[in-house]
Amino acid sequence: MILIAGPSANGISERIAELRGEKSYSTAHKVFPDGESYIKIPHEIAGEDIAIIQSTNTPQDKSLMELFFMIDKARNMGAKSITAIVPYMGYMRQNKEFNEGEAVSISTIISILNSLQLDNLITIQPHKSGPLRAFKGKTAIVDVTGKMAVYAGAGMRNPLVLAPDKGALEIARKAAASIGCAYTYIDKERLNDTKVSIKHSPSESMKGNDVMIIDDMISTGGTIVQAAEFAKSRGAENVRVAAVHLIMAGNAEEKLRNAGISEICGTNTLPFRGTKTFDISEEIAKSLDEIKSE
Amino acid sequence: MILIAGPSANGISERIAELRGEKSYSTAHKVFPDGESYIKIPHEIAGEDIAIIQSTNTPQDKSLMELFFMIDKARNMGAKSITAIVPYMGYMRQNKEFNEGEAVSISTIISILNSLQLDNLITIQPHKSGPLRAFKGKTAIVDVTGKMAVYAGAGMRNPLVLAPDKGALEIARKAAASIGCAYTYIDKERLNDTKVSIKHSPSESMKGNDVMIIDDMISTGGTIVQAAEFAKSRGAENVRVAAVHLIMAGNAEEKLRNAGISEICGTNTLPFRGTKTFDISEEIAKSLDEIKSE
Repeated sequence: MILIAGPSANGISERIAELRGEKSYSTAHKVFPDGESYIKIPHEIAGEDIAIIQSTNTPQDKSLMELFFMIDKARNMGAKSITAIVPYMGYMRQNKEFNEGEAVSISTIISILNSLQLDNLITIQPHKSGPLRAFKGKTAIVDVTGKMAVYAGAGMRNPLVLAPDKGALEIARKAAASIGCAYTYIDKERLNDTKVSIKHSPSESMKGNDVMIIDDMISTGGTIVQAAEFAKSRGAENVRVAAVHLIMAGNAEEKLRNAGISEICGTNTLPFRGTKTFDISEEIAKSLDEIKSE
Repeated sequence: MILIAGPSANGISERIAELRGEKSYSTAHKVFPDGESYIKIPHEIAGEDIAIIQSTNTPQDKSLMELFFMIDKARNMGAKSITAIVPYMGYMRQNKEFNEGEAVSISTIISILNSLQLDNLITIQPHKSGPLRAFKGKTAIVDVTGKMAVYAGAGMRNPLVLAPDKGALEIARKAAASIGCAYTYIDKERLNDTKVSIKHSPSESMKGNDVMIIDDMISTGGTIVQAAEFAKSRGAENVRVAAVHLIMAGNAEEKLRNAGISEICGTNTLPFRGTKTFDISEEIAKSLDEIKSE
C-alpha cells in the first residue's frame, strides 16, 4: 500500500507509514490567488493499493473538494484500490432534514464518494454514524475515546468525567470506564435560539474532584464553557476538557481559557494543538490492516 | 419553470424570472461558525422543471459544494428536470494534466455533476470549453462579448481594442467587430515564473486612441496592468478594461487603478461591481428558452 498525504493530513501520514513499513508521499499543493486549489499526486501509483489521508479541516468545503480531486486523479492514474482516511468528517450535524427543503449535506458528500468509486472509508468517531451507511464501499469507524481519555487524564486526582450534554453520555461512559472513575452528565433544555436551561444535573458536590469534561468535538466551545462553569459552581477546582475533534472555531480557545479550563486535550484529527494531543496514527494503521484483511 | 437562487446567484434571478414571467425563490442559507454551509430550498418543487442559479464566487470550493447540495436536494424533492445556471465556472484553467500527476479539477467537477444527474448546464464564456464536453446533459455556453463591449465602450473616442495576450485575441476580435473599430494584441513569452517578455506588440502609435483592454476574466490583474502600461507607453491617454468575469483577487482593483485604468467594466457573473456592469440576465433567460426547446 502507498500512502498519499493530502494538504489536510495534519502530519499523521509519516507515522502511519512507519508503523506499517510502507511509503508515504505528500501531494504537491498550492492555492492560487483567486482561491482555487492545485493538487498533484507525486508518485506513480498504477496497480497499487493506495490510501489518501485528508481530514476535513476548515475550510471544510476546500478540504472536501481536494479529497474529491485526489480520489478521481488516483482512479485515473490506475490505482488498484483507493482508501480515504478522513480522520474528521465534517458536515455530520446536518444528518437529516430537520425542516422541509433542507439539504442533507453529508448525504450528498457520501453520494459523491460513491460516484468516484471510493473503495474504503476510514474515519474517527463521526458525530453520527447513520449517514455513513449509504457509503457503498467498506467503512471503518475508529473509536479512540478510551485511549485518548487515559492519556488526557494522566495526573488527575480523584477524577470525575462530566458529559456536557446527554449526547455525550456514551463517550463519557467509555472514558470513565477506561480511566476507572465515575461519570455524570448535564441535561439541557433548549428554550429558544439563545437560551438553554439545565434540566438534569449532578446533585452531588464536585469538591475535591478533578473534572474532565468530554465530548466528541469542540466547535465554538459554548457547551463546554457552560459545563465548566457548572463544575466550578459545584466546587471542582481543576477542570480540563478532552474532545476527539478540536475544530475550535473563532475564539473557542480563548473562551475555554476564560472559563478556567486548565487543559485542552484532544487528538490530531484536526490541526489544533492543545495541552495534550493523542496521536491517532496507531489506531488508523490498525484499521488499515482490518479493512485489508476483510 | 421555477428559479432557485443559490447563495452565489449575485442578484440575477429576479430579472430572469421577470423576463420569463416565472417565479424565483432564494434559498435559505447560512454559514455555521465552523465554516460549514446550511442551505434550504424554500418551495415545493416536485414535478417541476427547476433552474438553480449559483456562480462559483470565491471561495469557489464553497460555491461548488453548495451547488452540489442544491442539485442533490432538488433531485430528492422530486424535481422533473434540473438546470444549473453557473454564470462563472471556476477551475477552468487547470483543464488538463500539464505535469504528470496533476489533478484535473474541472474534470472531477463535471464528473460529479454527471453523477448528480444534472440535466442542463448553462454557463457564460468558460476560460476553455473543452472540459465541458464531458458533461452528459445539455450544455449552453452563452457569449456576451459583443453586447458587453458595446456597453462598456460607450463614449470612447477613436476606440481601439487591445488583447493583453494571444489567448484573448478571439474575444478582442469579437469586441472590435461589435464596436466597429480596430483591434490589436500583445504577445508575450514567459521567460520564467516571474518574468515575461513582449514578443509581438502593436508597432503603431496609440496616440489619440481610447483603448479598451479586453479579456475573458481578471484574476490578479497582472496581465491587464502590463497591457495598460504598454498602451500608455504608446501614447494612449484613456485606457479602460472590460472582462466578462471580474474575479478581482486580492488587491487587483487597486493595481488596475494605480496603472491608470479609468474604468473597470464587466458583467454580473460575479459579485464585483466596477464602473459599468453589463447585466447578463437577458442572455441567460434566452438560453433557458433554447435549452427547453431543443
